[in-house]
Amino acid sequence: MSTFMRLPVMAPEEVDIAIVGVPFDIAVTNRPGTRHGPRELRNQSSLMRRYNHTTWRSPYDAARVADCGDAPVHPLDLMENLSLIEGFYARIKSAGALPLTGGGDHLITLPILRGLKPEEPVGLIQFDAHSDTYDEFFGQKYNHGTPFRRGIEEGLIDPKRFVQIGIRGSIGDPRNFDFARDAGVRTIFMEEFCARGVDDVMAEAREILGDKPTYVTFDIDGIDPSQAPGTGTPEIGGFTTREAQAMVRKLSGLNVIGADLVEVAPPFDPSGLTAMTGATIMFELLCVLADHVAARGT
Amino acid sequence: MSTFMRLPVMAPEEVDIAIVGVPFDIAVTNRPGTRHGPRELRNQSSLMRRYNHTTWRSPYDAARVADCGDAPVHPLDLMENLSLIEGFYARIKSAGALPLTGGGDHLITLPILRGLKPEEPVGLIQFDAHSDTYDEFFGQKYNHGTPFRRGIEEGLIDPKRFVQIGIRGSIGDPRNFDFARDAGVRTIFMEEFCARGVDDVMAEAREILGDKPTYVTFDIDGIDPSQAPGTGTPEIGGFTTREAQAMVRKLSGLNVIGADLVEVAPPFDPSGLTAMTGATIMFELLCVLADHVAARGT
Amino acid sequence: MSTFMRLPVMAPEEVDIAIVGVPFDIAVTNRPGTRHGPRELRNQSSLMRRYNHTTWRSPYDAARVADCGDAPVHPLDLMENLSLIEGFYARIKSAGALPLTGGGDHLITLPILRGLKPEEPVGLIQFDAHSDTYDEFFGQKYNHGTPFRRGIEEGLIDPKRFVQIGIRGSIGDPRNFDFARDAGVRTIFMEEFCARGVDDVMAEAREILGDKPTYVTFDIDGIDPSQAPGTGTPEIGGFTTREAQAMVRKLSGLNVIGADLVEVAPPFDPSGLTAMTGATIMFELLCVLADHVAARGT
Amino acid sequence: MSTFMRLPVMAPEEVDIAIVGVPFDIAVTNRPGTRHGPRELRNQSSLMRRYNHTTWRSPYDAARVADCGDAPVHPLDLMENLSLIEGFYARIKSAGALPLTGGGDHLITLPILRGLKPEEPVGLIQFDAHSDTYDEFFGQKYNHGTPFRRGIEEGLIDPKRFVQIGIRGSIGDPRNFDFARDAGVRTIFMEEFCARGVDDVMAEAREILGDKPTYVTFDIDGIDPSQAPGTGTPEIGGFTTREAQAMVRKLSGLNVIGADLVEVAPPFDPSGLTAMTGATIMFELLCVLADHVAARGT
Amino acid sequence: MSTFMRLPVMAPEEVDIAIVGVPFDIAVTNRPGTRHGPRELRNQSSLMRRYNHTTWRSPYDAARVADCGDAPVHPLDLMENLSLIEGFYARIKSAGALPLTGGGDHLITLPILRGLKPEEPVGLIQFDAHSDTYDEFFGQKYNHGTPFRRGIEEGLIDPKRFVQIGIRGSIGDPRNFDFARDAGVRTIFMEEFCARGVDDVMAEAREILGDKPTYVTFDIDGIDPSQAPGTGTPEIGGFTTREAQAMVRKLSGLNVIGADLVEVAPPFDPSGLTAMTGATIMFELLCVLADHVAARGT
Amino acid sequence: MSTFMRLPVMAPEEVDIAIVGVPFDIAVTNRPGTRHGPRELRNQSSLMRRYNHTTWRSPYDAARVADCGDAPVHPLDLMENLSLIEGFYARIKSAGALPLTGGGDHLITLPILRGLKPEEPVGLIQFDAHSDTYDEFFGQKYNHGTPFRRGIEEGLIDPKRFVQIGIRGSIGDPRNFDFARDAGVRTIFMEEFCARGVDDVMAEAREILGDKPTYVTFDIDGIDPSQAPGTGTPEIGGFTTREAQAMVRKLSGLNVIGADLVEVAPPFDPSGLTAMTGATIMFELLCVLADHVAARGT
Repeated sequence: MSTFMRLPVMAPEEVDIAIVGVPFDIAVTNRPGTRHGPRELRNQSSLMRRYNHTTWRSPYDAARVADCGDAPVHPLDLMENLSLIEGFYARIKSAGALPLTGGGDHLITLPILRGLKPEEPVGLIQFDAHSDTYDEFFGQKYNHGTPFRRGIEEGLIDPKRFVQIGIRGSIGDPRNFDFARDAGVRTIFMEEFCARGVDDVMAEAREILGDKPTYVTFDIDGIDPSQAPGTGTPEIGGFTTREAQAMVRKLSGLNVIGADLVEVAPPFDPSGLTAMTGATIMFELLCVLADHVAARGT
Repeated sequence: MSTFMRLPVMAPEEVDIAIVGVPFDIAVTNRPGTRHGPRELRNQSSLMRRYNHTTWRSPYDAARVADCGDAPVHPLDLMENLSLIEGFYARIKSAGALPLTGGGDHLITLPILRGLKPEEPVGLIQFDAHSDTYDEFFGQKYNHGTPFRRGIEEGLIDPKRFVQIGIRGSIGDPRNFDFARDAGVRTIFMEEFCARGVDDVMAEAREILGDKPTYVTFDIDGIDPSQAPGTGTPEIGGFTTREAQAMVRKLSGLNVIGADLVEVAPPFDPSGLTAMTGATIMFELLCVLADHVAARGT
Repeated sequence: MSTFMRLPVMAPEEVDIAIVGVPFDIAVTNRPGTRHGPRELRNQSSLMRRYNHTTWRSPYDAARVADCGDAPVHPLDLMENLSLIEGFYARIKSAGALPLTGGGDHLITLPILRGLKPEEPVGLIQFDAHSDTYDEFFGQKYNHGTPFRRGIEEGLIDPKRFVQIGIRGSIGDPRNFDFARDAGVRTIFMEEFCARGVDDVMAEAREILGDKPTYVTFDIDGIDPSQAPGTGTPEIGGFTTREAQAMVRKLSGLNVIGADLVEVAPPFDPSGLTAMTGATIMFELLCVLADHVAARGT
Repeated sequence: MSTFMRLPVMAPEEVDIAIVGVPFDIAVTNRPGTRHGPRELRNQSSLMRRYNHTTWRSPYDAARVADCGDAPVHPLDLMENLSLIEGFYARIKSAGALPLTGGGDHLITLPILRGLKPEEPVGLIQFDAHSDTYDEFFGQKYNHGTPFRRGIEEGLIDPKRFVQIGIRGSIGDPRNFDFARDAGVRTIFMEEFCARGVDDVMAEAREILGDKPTYVTFDIDGIDPSQAPGTGTPEIGGFTTREAQAMVRKLSGLNVIGADLVEVAPPFDPSGLTAMTGATIMFELLCVLADHVAARGT
Repeated sequence: MSTFMRLPVMAPEEVDIAIVGVPFDIAVTNRPGTRHGPRELRNQSSLMRRYNHTTWRSPYDAARVADCGDAPVHPLDLMENLSLIEGFYARIKSAGALPLTGGGDHLITLPILRGLKPEEPVGLIQFDAHSDTYDEFFGQKYNHGTPFRRGIEEGLIDPKRFVQIGIRGSIGDPRNFDFARDAGVRTIFMEEFCARGVDDVMAEAREILGDKPTYVTFDIDGIDPSQAPGTGTPEIGGFTTREAQAMVRKLSGLNVIGADLVEVAPPFDPSGLTAMTGATIMFELLCVLADHVAARGT
Repeated sequence: MSTFMRLPVMAPEEVDIAIVGVPFDIAVTNRPGTRHGPRELRNQSSLMRRYNHTTWRSPYDAARVADCGDAPVHPLDLMENLSLIEGFYARIKSAGALPLTGGGDHLITLPILRGLKPEEPVGLIQFDAHSDTYDEFFGQKYNHGTPFRRGIEEGLIDPKRFVQIGIRGSIGDPRNFDFARDAGVRTIFMEEFCARGVDDVMAEAREILGDKPTYVTFDIDGIDPSQAPGTGTPEIGGFTTREAQAMVRKLSGLNVIGADLVEVAPPFDPSGLTAMTGATIMFELLCVLADHVAARGT
């Protein structure tokens, strides 16, 4: 009976950090399958042990953590699901817990941020192969390529405190990035990342994010498809897992109000490697969140 | 450059039988993936040769046949897609061609029938593990479990000339079949089929269908998952391919106005066996359609 | 958070039928991997709905059923594990519940029977490719090829009320079956089964078992490897799933005190078909157990 | 260090039955890969035990049997390889041993028969989805679709004592079977086989073959692709392994001078099921050959 | 109906750059399967969008590009196929188009160069794990290990303007590289590449190639098998895709008269990652070719 | 008939270096399967040629090398197997040969060292994701997480000359490393390795090991799971194969008395990449051993 990190199942009101799933994939434009992401992330997270070997600390010593179940989604009505997800996170917010989410396609970050109802637009750091700041696909405004444009438009995200790392791949229109650039988003393409390395890039990111509330979103397709094949829109030339782990660890100390790991699609992950990678990144994100809980005092 | 059966690409107006694809899967309730069905059906159909070895006849001697491309669907708005599919088939109907379709999830049969605008409700023979005559899932009326209920309600299908074969598997509610039974649908569960065999069952089916216009819909999950694993809702205990081929061949001579083969989901079909099975069934359906073209005179 | 049949987690004391897992594989002689069987059986059993379509009855209307968790085994000491398993089933017995088990390798049936402490030797019906009545392998008395010889020797099983169906495959020594035959076990080899069919064979089996307490053990390798590839010792020429389902249904009405489905090895089951087949067989076994609960009165 | 059936490696002069491999696939027209067939057949044959459970006899009690290695082929010159294979079997013939071969594509049967230099044309029983009596492909006379036409033309095979069972699938030209029919070959298509069953068909086959020298050739694609997916030209609707085993067992008592099992293509057999099926059929063929050795006296 | 990059199908006479396939694999010495390379490269190239995100330019703005189909090869006569391929490229040359090829095994580069009939020997840059400058295998002069020796001998390639990068792996004979070294070929082994990095190595390569006509050949096995598993002769320790993309981009500005991407073998590429990697490299090569078209004026 | 490196099968007494297999996996705590490691390592090692391309030397010119078969293990009694393995290596030691082993789970290094009966504790260099210096699991002292603690306790290993490289992953208890640290073991975690690089780390390792007898143990899970997925306890963020090859090559010149490559688990390695990687590392280890044989004089 798999739970995230083999944790007990509890209500958001009982915890500092609520690990949850959003089994949702009806906003994808290419290969679906992420609706089964939370299940496989839970399965693989059973391999995570209690202590981070780079800090010798355990997140469970710093914070109360549990598996708080799945958001109540279904596979047939996109707009209704956005409301259901928003409501689920509103309750987590009310309970005073920080959410750590296993997705689900990338659109879910939008209703998560809606549910968290930030008093002012939050900072955002995004690890991803794709910018996801497009306006629409097939005339549709809400899909997994548009969440951050909607989030900026809705005042949920502060584009001046928004950093994207790892963006790459051929593009349909050179104006695709105009919106993000004009809004002040800092887009670090893969080639710039390769040239500068983890330390330099993350130093800049931390400076942009500052000490105000920040949300972390990690699209598994930011990682190379040899290490994370199970995703809907793979793109060669990605992060190594060593780079990914190093970057997430450098988030420690930021004012992180929540995090997600999205786009794990088990049908394309027969070996389970993607889910294992995703679960390990979630453990690192959990350590970052726990550090923040410890720092703020519970 | 794969086409169905390695045929040329032509317009519906130029052919007697139009083979088309509907790369659509946003109406599924379990595992998505059939949007890539037409592509793999085309790939595997390259293995089909010209003559049927059980009749020594070729469908290409009896009818003009071509690949008429895909219906213009997209992955993000269910109701809009239903209109797009209906329009595509309305053109095929206007052109005087009979459609043979590779799907796509099973909901597509509904807009296909709408597009064919039959003057009176058509007969229907359905090979399938599931009845697909449910009323709704998650409050949604249009999904791959409801097409035939909608079709009866809309007057597209004559329930008295509707035969379902191969239905099986545990069910959520014993009243699920009430609608179909009350409307006069003949449901032949798998256990009855096993006891009676192909010849007896198909004799009954032909009698029910009679000589009025009939549509054939073949859900690949009617076949056993060992022979057709790549589908969204597999159910053990299915037809063998030998039985499936024998049943389709016994449709020859009926007044068949169109046929489809649906629910091939390539993400769950790493070996390609499901698509190969689907392509072979499509070739048998093509032979049945060509026999009808020959019989009616072009 | 997968449970068997999506049931709630409860204690044996609260139910009539306790579905449990035994994640154990250190008694295999060929390919290990069944330690992950219960996890995948749980995952796939999420597809099981509430009613059996051949009877229109639900086991949940006749009996209280829950997932009672896993036996507390570990991967490193065979004899210690046998004690742990025995203790786990002794508690189920004390609670008055009937166990339905997802294994695990076939040796687990031995400590299950020990734990059930039958007052007199029980009848046994075994669906299997292998007799599992060998004396020893590599000088070891306890492994997945020996449970039923040990069970007879320990007075747990009545060899006169013991039927094996589906046995097949080349053998190392023609005297391998001497013990079983001399003890009075009725071994129905696959070739006899093929010649006689399900109805005839099961009629004989029911007569042998009579109305005294009977245990049912189903080794997934009894089913053909095309339909159940994920197992440690596959053997071609097996049961079809249609035959397997029909045979299990014919157990209804017997005095069944428990049942297991063993030898599902997920590492050899990349498509999940074996676990799906196993979960479906478990649902059929559950219906048989529920029928018995209903018949005896709770 | 895998050998066929875990037998010792010996020279043909030391045995009654020489099991050999022909790792060859440059005569295929569709998917190559059978060059690795012998290796995987050897690996899987390690599961074969000593006694046939339907006869309680062991081939090793009746005949001296060993693995005599691979024919000395290479992947780059078809005609040169045919000579190399012929020479390899000429030595086996000289040594007085009967060859049992694991292929390799189906063209190898031609140089095997050449090497066996029969005094008069031999009888042939072929289990196969395809007739392999075509004249040429792409203007080439020697490929895996033509061996039996060449064999008849060269006087190696007696077409009046030639039975083909299991032929099926769409065909390119209805005249493809004219040569075989006119020559007197008995072609039993799959549909006739299904209608009549194993016993009836094999009784006819035995009568045609009589008691003169007969060679057995088993193309693994005769078996259904769900049970033997790993082959170059799969065709749905094939034999079950139960039927295949039953047919081979009915060859016992014939004057069998050699046998082969061909077209196992490991690249399309990730689970190893095809090689396991092939190895099991080879064990059954070995029992037939050993029966003949026992009958003639060594 | 997949075409390369979803481009229209056109004749070579209508384009500046002709993308073509050569479905050929009968010159391999290890694992065959590249005959299906062009099909899967086409399938995966459907994911390529119009603009290169590192230059913000589209190849389609600089040049007329289309899918010009496959060379007319067949699987049975090596020398005849070499003529067929040569003829196909001679037409492309006559039409004034630059060819971009998806293979096929590496021998195809030889008849491609023959067909291009360069007025003087061309420069060659080869990304590869293997030198392919051997003299013969099994006594055969024409196979996928010999194309560049033949090309030098035939005066098609200028060995002084020939750079190989990425060569690695154990070797059969230390004299294997004597021919290449003596002829003046610059061989950069993997270890030298690792020590120096992309920029330094490519600067040297550009200097060697100069501004005279140069052909680019990219063997997918140059890339690490974790990122390109689907190939006939994988060798661990290869390029990352990030390195491969960076190297190809540095070819821009050279006088490139054609390019190929070879050795994609779909049977060993169940996830499609190799074909996706190959298609992405082909898009980068297309950008290089388009830059050259733009620079020379059409 | 696969042997390691296609070498002949010989007795230890006839060689300088004995390559052997230990098909053993009953000491694992997570996913079993390494019992089939030696078979697949042999299969894949058939691709290894005779010369190392970085030195232009062949190990076969410096030493007599053969495949000396498998240690006589069985799958059912751990302690008995330890004795069997020890005896097997004692014979190799007596014969004066150096053993190169393909495992098997990591516990086998313990009985190997026992069998080698070193006069004084040996130096050890371990490439691994896990320290394997734990005390016990489930109360068991002998499993694949404990061999090096046992080895130190038994005086087989000199902890002051023991270097571990690549250790990583979350841990159950921060005191897990206390024993190793207190004993003087030098543990180089992955993060330190990443920061310093191969050259620097290996220089330190060589200094620690000095010129006294040293044993090399390479756990395939040290390498990243994208390049070595087939292992029981994968851990993301591992060595690249380029790093692994470079590190092993830097062992040349040490006083190496034996080496092993362990934890290859074929059930999780459908593509064979792990076994190919393992076989290539074994070839590099063989070159190191041969260098030592050459240096000491035979």
